[in-house]
Amino acid sequence: MTGDRLSRLSLNQRTVANATLAEAIEACRSAGLTSIGVWREPVAEVGLDRAAELIKESGLRVSSLCRGGFFTASAPEAVEQAHLDNRAAIDEAARLGAATLCLVPGGLPAGDRDLAGARARVVEAIERLVPYASERGVRLGIEPMNPIYAADRGVISTLGQALDIADRFPAEHVGVIVDTFHLWWEPGVEEQIARAADRIVSYQISDWITPLPPDTLLARGMMGDGHIDFASFTRAVAAAGYQGDVEVEIFNADLWAQPYQQVVDTLSERYLQLVQPHL
Amino acid sequence: MTGDRLSRLSLNQRTVANATLAEAIEACRSAGLTSIGVWREPVAEVGLDRAAELIKESGLRVSSLCRGGFFTASAPEAVEQAHLDNRAAIDEAARLGAATLCLVPGGLPAGDRDLAGARARVVEAIERLVPYASERGVRLGIEPMNPIYAADRGVISTLGQALDIADRFPAEHVGVIVDTFHLWWEPGVEEQIARAADRIVSYQISDWITPLPPDTLLARGMMGDGHIDFASFTRAVAAAGYQGDVEVEIFNADLWAQPYQQVVDTLSERYLQLVQPHL
Repeated sequence: MTGDRLSRLSLNQRTVANATLAEAIEACRSAGLTSIGVWREPVAEVGLDRAAELIKESGLRVSSLCRGGFFTASAPEAVEQAHLDNRAAIDEAARLGAATLCLVPGGLPAGDRDLAGARARVVEAIERLVPYASERGVRLGIEPMNPIYAADRGVISTLGQALDIADRFPAEHVGVIVDTFHLWWEPGVEEQIARAADRIVSYQISDWITPLPPDTLLARGMMGDGHIDFASFTRAVAAAGYQGDVEVEIFNADLWAQPYQQVVDTLSERYLQLVQPHL
Repeated sequence: MTGDRLSRLSLNQRTVANATLAEAIEACRSAGLTSIGVWREPVAEVGLDRAAELIKESGLRVSSLCRGGFFTASAPEAVEQAHLDNRAAIDEAARLGAATLCLVPGGLPAGDRDLAGARARVVEAIERLVPYASERGVRLGIEPMNPIYAADRGVISTLGQALDIADRFPAEHVGVIVDTFHLWWEPGVEEQIARAADRIVSYQISDWITPLPPDTLLARGMMGDGHIDFASFTRAVAAAGYQGDVEVEIFNADLWAQPYQQVVDTLSERYLQLVQPHL
């Protein structure tokens, strides 16, 4: 019965950052999960073909591939490099059968304070990428990021802003990642989730904890350890019609120090307690 | 000539957190500033009457009093306590002739994850406070705060959201604090600044620096040290018709370790270079 209730839970690989792909897969299967979110770096470690094979053998779905994006460079050669790298990421997502390729927008280039310009370059880069992705059946997922990362990682700061970009393209080609850590504070986020509707390509969860850990990149918490109301947020996502996987993505040094299986057991428990009843 | 160009620059006392009120006043006067933003705690240290006297003797304007607010408690006695404390803050603002009383919204009460509820209590608390403030000629300033503080300090996260609250009241009674650190990332912030118009009761400046210092409460940087484009932000504030003081409010441990006069000299230089030409 618990197995059934875990049927939409996915482990984002980065939640067990020190695990190899094989170890992450094993942790999912032992805990009864049927889905995994994979990262390009650990996939590259074993090689794309071997990674695809491991995943196929495991029977797991791939809820997302992390990550493409980083679209904000302004130098022409860097723009071109980013485009080519994103094409490679799209190829990998297609090969792995990932439900979406997560696009992290990118931050301000060093010494560049033109936020509007950086945001405009994100739109241009996505526009250029859409034909390549759609030909390969890969759905792009724009990830709006908590403003804490606006300078150095993600210049798209709200779900509303991400949807304004996604709306330029057909929903089957470009969607949005709805992540509790990034969006829980957004005024009117429930209306934006409703607006997103079938553009929600991934629902990612982790908690906002305080005091915020010193390294902002590792500042996410286990669901239930922080301030986010997963019940109301999840109900909004469900009401918008989302039927995909719920991916737990937690960057946290304390968690990374724990045995993988313990991490997956804990997040499964928290998911059953705080999230699953509201889906 | 520099003196003239500094005529709208104000030192928020918290930028020289270790200075007494008398020392902060002296640092302003030595640098040619004609305005100061004061905090209740150092005012209380010398006593309200003595503080009012010191400020009057100095000839400085009081650009703001920090701070009232912290409106999000839910227990009735805590709500009442906050109301009484805010009445006291209004009395102090009136006595000091402050251009506005800054209202920090407050975070989520311990263990409370109902963000919408906390936001609603902010509105209720302000509504209850307006008659008292307006009778005493004190203009309330709602401070929207960077989402990094949404859980523990300020549940009002955007200028748009602050204006939705302020709009319920006459502009001469309730305005908004426009602070670069809090708002620089907000999509559409220039339109919101234009919308704010005569509701801008204070323009506060500091920079967003990365990597973010470990203590998020002390994470602000000197203008020019970070990622904010002060030119375009300041032009938007000027275009909205704001003619008040520009208050430098930087919470930063490194800065607090420097001699007061050096801090005020540096911020004066940066202001002349990055902000004043765009006013």
